Amino acid sequence: MKYGMLTEKILSELKDIVGDSSVWITQEKLLSCSRDQTITLKTDEYIMPDVVVAPSNAEEVSKILKLANKHLIPVTPRGGGTGLSGGALPIHGGIVISDEKLNKIIEIDSENMVAVVEPGVVTSDISTAAIEKKLWYAGYPMSFESCHIGGNIAENAGGGNAVKYGVTIRYVLGLEVVMPTGEIVNLGGKLMKDVSGYNLKELIVGSEGTLGYVTKIILKLQPVMKSRVVLLVLFKDTETAISLVPKIMTESGILPKSIEFIDRNCYESSCKYLNEELPMEGVGAVLLIELDGSVDEHVEHEADKVGVICSEGGAVEIYVADNATTRERIWSVRRNVDEAMRLQYPTQVGQDTVVPIASIPKYVKELEKLAQKHGVLIPIYGHAGDGNLHPSVLKKNEISMEEWETQKHIVEYEIFKLTHNMGGAISGEHGIGTKRKDIFTELAGETHLYFMKKIKEALDPNNIMNPGKIF
Amino acid sequence: MKYGMLTEKILSELKDIVGDSSVWITQEKLLSCSRDQTITLKTDEYIMPDVVVAPSNAEEVSKILKLANKHLIPVTPRGGGTGLSGGALPIHGGIVISDEKLNKIIEIDSENMVAVVEPGVVTSDISTAAIEKKLWYAGYPMSFESCHIGGNIAENAGGGNAVKYGVTIRYVLGLEVVMPTGEIVNLGGKLMKDVSGYNLKELIVGSEGTLGYVTKIILKLQPVMKSRVVLLVLFKDTETAISLVPKIMTESGILPKSIEFIDRNCYESSCKYLNEELPMEGVGAVLLIELDGSVDEHVEHEADKVGVICSEGGAVEIYVADNATTRERIWSVRRNVDEAMRLQYPTQVGQDTVVPIASIPKYVKELEKLAQKHGVLIPIYGHAGDGNLHPSVLKKNEISMEEWETQKHIVEYEIFKLTHNMGGAISGEHGIGTKRKDIFTELAGETHLYFMKKIKEALDPNNIMNPGKIF
Repeated sequence: MKYGMLTEKILSELKDIVGDSSVWITQEKLLSCSRDQTITLKTDEYIMPDVVVAPSNAEEVSKILKLANKHLIPVTPRGGGTGLSGGALPIHGGIVISDEKLNKIIEIDSENMVAVVEPGVVTSDISTAAIEKKLWYAGYPMSFESCHIGGNIAENAGGGNAVKYGVTIRYVLGLEVVMPTGEIVNLGGKLMKDVSGYNLKELIVGSEGTLGYVTKIILKLQPVMKSRVVLLVLFKDTETAISLVPKIMTESGILPKSIEFIDRNCYESSCKYLNEELPMEGVGAVLLIELDGSVDEHVEHEADKVGVICSEGGAVEIYVADNATTRERIWSVRRNVDEAMRLQYPTQVGQDTVVPIASIPKYVKELEKLAQKHGVLIPIYGHAGDGNLHPSVLKKNEISMEEWETQKHIVEYEIFKLTHNMGGAISGEHGIGTKRKDIFTELAGETHLYFMKKIKEALDPNNIMNPGKIF
Repeated sequence: MKYGMLTEKILSELKDIVGDSSVWITQEKLLSCSRDQTITLKTDEYIMPDVVVAPSNAEEVSKILKLANKHLIPVTPRGGGTGLSGGALPIHGGIVISDEKLNKIIEIDSENMVAVVEPGVVTSDISTAAIEKKLWYAGYPMSFESCHIGGNIAENAGGGNAVKYGVTIRYVLGLEVVMPTGEIVNLGGKLMKDVSGYNLKELIVGSEGTLGYVTKIILKLQPVMKSRVVLLVLFKDTETAISLVPKIMTESGILPKSIEFIDRNCYESSCKYLNEELPMEGVGAVLLIELDGSVDEHVEHEADKVGVICSEGGAVEIYVADNATTRERIWSVRRNVDEAMRLQYPTQVGQDTVVPIASIPKYVKELEKLAQKHGVLIPIYGHAGDGNLHPSVLKKNEISMEEWETQKHIVEYEIFKLTHNMGGAISGEHGIGTKRKDIFTELAGETHLYFMKKIKEALDPNNIMNPGKIF
């Protein structure tokens, strides 16, 4: 499909819609929208839009999309730029819609236990605002201090609380969406249940900005869980740690808030990056397990129970963090693994695979075999409790960049096939975007793809909304 | 749209697909598929299909749907026949696909904490099978001893556990679906998370059988909550009871498993129907509140806390049921309200409205005003904890059937408008079906409808899957 060119006339119309000061064509601004956190890009690779616009409401977005349809200009939505699948990259140029002016927390409605927000709000700001009213937003992507809630919706973001609290879709009660053709629809509301018509809201969530632009979000909040205990459980090796993950749930009868896995390499790297002096001697892998509830003694009791299972399962040592400072120290190590590993190993390609929880031990073993076979490093960390791991493939120093380019694709492909053959999926929370498009197209199967494309065609006949993503 | 006629040739082809003994054209069988539990139908009104077929697997369903497309024969899926919105009624005749041979629990996979089932399994049978493996299926529609899980998927059924555990969609990890045009797709899997491509699975759930026929379902199970306390809280009037509903959650910081409301009329009727001698003297309304967890003392502690809030909020008396027998006695009263009220008031029309939780007290007052204004009875019961009430409109004896027919529509319409104006929706868990189609079409708004229809057209171009439902 051939897209239209951005002309002076279109530029002037964009300025009429959002005002002169909300339209940018400066190199500086275009560059700021040309990357995300996907590091498979070569360092000199910048994917530039032709123009960046910042609308302030749904009506302005509607006018932009109608204009874009008229002239066949591609439109790419952009949030915090923290994406890990290239979903925000304007690969066909055109217009980037920035959410920088759609950044208000409209309301924390404590009586209905909901938050009403715009897409450009930083996720952790929602948590902070909710806590002031004794409520809690359970979404907790590892980038929650910088990602935007609009991006969380686009990718149906997961994170550290998903074992017990599920992923973003569970909390989206209502959406105001500008459809690709410019119509504004309101889906859902401040309602805990609603089966009136098709689940369009659920279809928009996770559609990576390809089926519309979300301008308002109603999020479910819940009572703050006052009691939280974090266990940092140390193991001598990965196998012992990972084989306990499904057992912690099936044997205890408890659904922990989080079960995160970090292998030696990632743990050491993140601790070093943060100057964090956690125990390291003889540690081959760690589990970060969080339990929460409304009464201290109850949560302590559960923590004891889980602790016993871990000890009996071969844990070397268990550190209990029951105050906010220590909990945050431990979580910070988990949250910073990605950044620390990027600094230490700038040449790498990260994954986001998910497998059935009972398959995690076997899966990790197979990944180790793959690493050995190909002479690469595959450190592993991630949300083990829901089967969602992030095995990165790292370039070893002795390998040339040329060899790496070939090797990377071979190893990645084998990881994808392995995941697929074990009944898994290639993305648990980061999305397909541009990064996983080819392999997704291969593995999803023709029929599945056919119906996704039918829906895309039905809602976006000119294929202007975030084209070139997913399939 | 004109549909094709069922010919001898098509009948013979159907027999070739599923076998002679799985195709019926006897009056008896056709009659058995001509009604559901929607009682707005006149007693002499039967909506007959031309043929009933019972396929045994996805391939057979695929062949049936391809045949139906070729000859433009409408296809209506049928499960337990317990629906309350006319979703299973073959209003254009044609083929009914019965799920009677797709009735197996394929697997309770305790290591992955999932159940794999066919659509014809009775929901409570899944619970029973799971409990044998120390796991639990949280879905609990009030008809769970007779409804089929396939119907729960079609309507995205809610029920008694939804305040804490959400509705059906939360538990559907995977679906095998035969799309309207006959292609078989597998969506999701034994995976706790998956953001690979559009949420087609979530789109199918709640689409009332209009976007495909589900042949296999992977359901998430969770650890059995060993401790359960049910509080039967008695109040002197509806207002006192209902005004406590949002407070129980916002003040306690606890998310109960259930907060059910039953007014005097419904409570008395159900107790009488069951020969249940629960306290009645001076009782104007009751709340059924269930709390659950893994440790007895913890749940008792929470029950105490909720009990105090109820007492301070004007409860006359609180009965605590902490053993299985008593709990079941109380729940049975709640589950049988619908049936008891139907017997007592055979001429009525039930509703399934949902409003924001903070609006429940005002909503109930407005319903009372409506009842007075129109000289009808509007008893109320339902899942108050998530804002989903079932206010039925009952015919008073002194009103003639003719007057009732007019009155019914006027009162219903006012309830819908009231609900809509308070930010609510006309169906929280029973679906739109045929029963609420007109009002849904009016209230949903043109744009919203437009996109639903676009999706329907994209997936079912000949409009053969359950036509005449939703819009």
